[in-house]
Amino acid sequence: MSTVKLMSDEEAEANALVKAVFDDIRATRGTDFINNIWRALAYDPAGLKRTWEHLKSVMAAPGALDPKTREMIYIAVSTANGCSYCVHSHTAAAKARGMTEQEHGELMQIIGLAGMTNHLVTALQVPVDPEFNVSN
Amino acid sequence: MSTVKLMSDEEAEANALVKAVFDDIRATRGTDFINNIWRALAYDPAGLKRTWEHLKSVMAAPGALDPKTREMIYIAVSTANGCSYCVHSHTAAAKARGMTEQEHGELMQIIGLAGMTNHLVTALQVPVDPEFNVSN
Amino acid sequence: MSTVKLMSDEEAEANALVKAVFDDIRATRGTDFINNIWRALAYDPAGLKRTWEHLKSVMAAPGALDPKTREMIYIAVSTANGCSYCVHSHTAAAKARGMTEQEHGELMQIIGLAGMTNHLVTALQVPVDPEFNVSN
Amino acid sequence: MSTVKLMSDEEAEANALVKAVFDDIRATRGTDFINNIWRALAYDPAGLKRTWEHLKSVMAAPGALDPKTREMIYIAVSTANGCSYCVHSHTAAAKARGMTEQEHGELMQIIGLAGMTNHLVTALQVPVDPEFNVSN
Amino acid sequence: MSTVKLMSDEEAEANALVKAVFDDIRATRGTDFINNIWRALAYDPAGLKRTWEHLKSVMAAPGALDPKTREMIYIAVSTANGCSYCVHSHTAAAKARGMTEQEHGELMQIIGLAGMTNHLVTALQVPVDPEFNVSN
Amino acid sequence: MSTVKLMSDEEAEANALVKAVFDDIRATRGTDFINNIWRALAYDPAGLKRTWEHLKSVMAAPGALDPKTREMIYIAVSTANGCSYCVHSHTAAAKARGMTEQEHGELMQIIGLAGMTNHLVTALQVPVDPEFNVSN
Repeated sequence: MSTVKLMSDEEAEANALVKAVFDDIRATRGTDFINNIWRALAYDPAGLKRTWEHLKSVMAAPGALDPKTREMIYIAVSTANGCSYCVHSHTAAAKARGMTEQEHGELMQIIGLAGMTNHLVTALQVPVDPEFNVSN
Repeated sequence: MSTVKLMSDEEAEANALVKAVFDDIRATRGTDFINNIWRALAYDPAGLKRTWEHLKSVMAAPGALDPKTREMIYIAVSTANGCSYCVHSHTAAAKARGMTEQEHGELMQIIGLAGMTNHLVTALQVPVDPEFNVSN
Repeated sequence: MSTVKLMSDEEAEANALVKAVFDDIRATRGTDFINNIWRALAYDPAGLKRTWEHLKSVMAAPGALDPKTREMIYIAVSTANGCSYCVHSHTAAAKARGMTEQEHGELMQIIGLAGMTNHLVTALQVPVDPEFNVSN
Repeated sequence: MSTVKLMSDEEAEANALVKAVFDDIRATRGTDFINNIWRALAYDPAGLKRTWEHLKSVMAAPGALDPKTREMIYIAVSTANGCSYCVHSHTAAAKARGMTEQEHGELMQIIGLAGMTNHLVTALQVPVDPEFNVSN
Repeated sequence: MSTVKLMSDEEAEANALVKAVFDDIRATRGTDFINNIWRALAYDPAGLKRTWEHLKSVMAAPGALDPKTREMIYIAVSTANGCSYCVHSHTAAAKARGMTEQEHGELMQIIGLAGMTNHLVTALQVPVDPEFNVSN
Repeated sequence: MSTVKLMSDEEAEANALVKAVFDDIRATRGTDFINNIWRALAYDPAGLKRTWEHLKSVMAAPGALDPKTREMIYIAVSTANGCSYCVHSHTAAAKARGMTEQEHGELMQIIGLAGMTNHLVTALQVPVDPEFNVSN
């Protein structure tokens, strides 16, 4: 149950701006599948285009980090932010990019551990060690 | 300014339980440096030991994920949880484990992007696509 | 599936304290509809009354900010806190107070952008510029 | 460095609404000390009064939970929300209401544990067991 | 809908590591019921064991805080982190350990109040009073 | 104390990509002042450019929401995310765009109220009323 309607393929075909973005999503990912986040954003074509192009340039462009690692980082942030949809979609993406069951298990444990020490540090209000300083 | 005192090396030497943990931290990491989180936890020696052993078994044991990737995931969670100390300490750790300036820049962009889409998805209450279902 | 029962109109009628609050909600809003948050709070009549009167004095009293803007701010906070129910109820309220589809789209984009830069700033631990200082 | 000025005792004396709230804080708590949150709220006297009266009725009224437990719950929420000021002020309050060093240590460990399992559950998207259902 | 399968009792019986943990959960709690978090963790037996032993040593060991208070603190953290499953499971646990309807109502009000003042303090960026300083 | 160095004007002048973005920030805002977020992002010129252009297109382009309202929404999100820097910078921006002291006070009260009800709703796990459904 979303706060906006999800745009169908028929509606998307009829809107040139949306169609261009949906086409680019399909071409970039090599699949016909358009997941719901894009269908929810589609009623604001400018917002859809801005969001997709930002995501594409960060996640699909060549870089130093491999696609699987990028998706595992995405899962980590999405978990801490409590975004169910994002946890689901990026877990599926990480698996599609080669995340093994063992890696998934280790990722879970690191996320859980970080959740624990983040809370301990905040509850204790631990001051930053001067040794960590890199700023000018 | 912490909510508890930070234990000095002198006090730690005088407490057998704390000394054992501090010695293990130093041996495991190959450095004399004990950062402030452990000094803040030290007035509850059982909690100190529990926390350290948990962290050690997740972060220092062999596994499928390399140490640098583990630290980058830690940064991602710590950022979303708003833990300044943790962001500092794990950024330092990631650099010590080989994170380059380019990788750091890409990590920042993925974290920022995830923050954005997490918020969009929650604001739009996007329903999970059935295609993501892996549960039984 | 809530952690408490939701109070029915029949039960509410039988409890003088709850009935008084439900009557005031209906009179203030000009509708018979009592949404679930109030039904969930009703088993603690003092808490129900305290919460409603606080909300009423902030959201329904005259002020410098118009009702539509108040609801959009509410959506923004509720999104960042990951409260699905609140996102739904305040999106409905904002629309009832005149939020257009275009304004909704812009609100989404601002919330997403803020989510992104919030994460970037925290990951980079950017120090506050002295130019922003207004305190004494 | 706050985003508003902190009201001094001299200014507070000159504003009847603020003076009444400050007097009530001092009388309720049995101390002359007014901490900074009230000085920051004071430039909006209606907001100051609303916030203080809400807090007073929840924290200072008789009830089933003792004052020390109330403050420990406050620390727990404030930690998860990353509010440094609140962690400091409610840790001081909990100590003033009798929280021992051992209880503080146990509180830290519960908060840390909850942080960990909260993250694990979200990352795994664990469905609620029907056995937990109490709703109608 | 979880991101991993939930392990059935049949599968758990066939895995010595998982069986040992499930047996210990049943023995420690005095019930045959294994809730879903453990079934979701079970495909990473080392992570399952680490998480359970950590939780057991914090929540089930003797200490200064009684079991009911521990669970109420757990609810407080889980709420602020937006973990639905955790709110449900620890509300059930708190009730099983004697939390009355009145205590539950007061807990709700403290959590709500803390949510409010946490936000006010952060929005106003209130500086910590030097009176709260306990660090060395 | 940031996790990266802040780029000085001298360094920015020497980097064509950074200089182009800094020039555009100055031209768009009509001021010579470049605040620290951009100096922290500058060591990843592609990330700097991507972030600035995204922000510019959301915050500086014409639209249905006026600039002051956009900034107040930004403050709301930044508060709930606990981003001190962002609260400071966008409070300054909102004031520069005409936010009065009264509007600031009302904004604080709405943010605080939303923080409270967000927590209450999550702690009570209130189910979404079917009346709020707008999805297809």
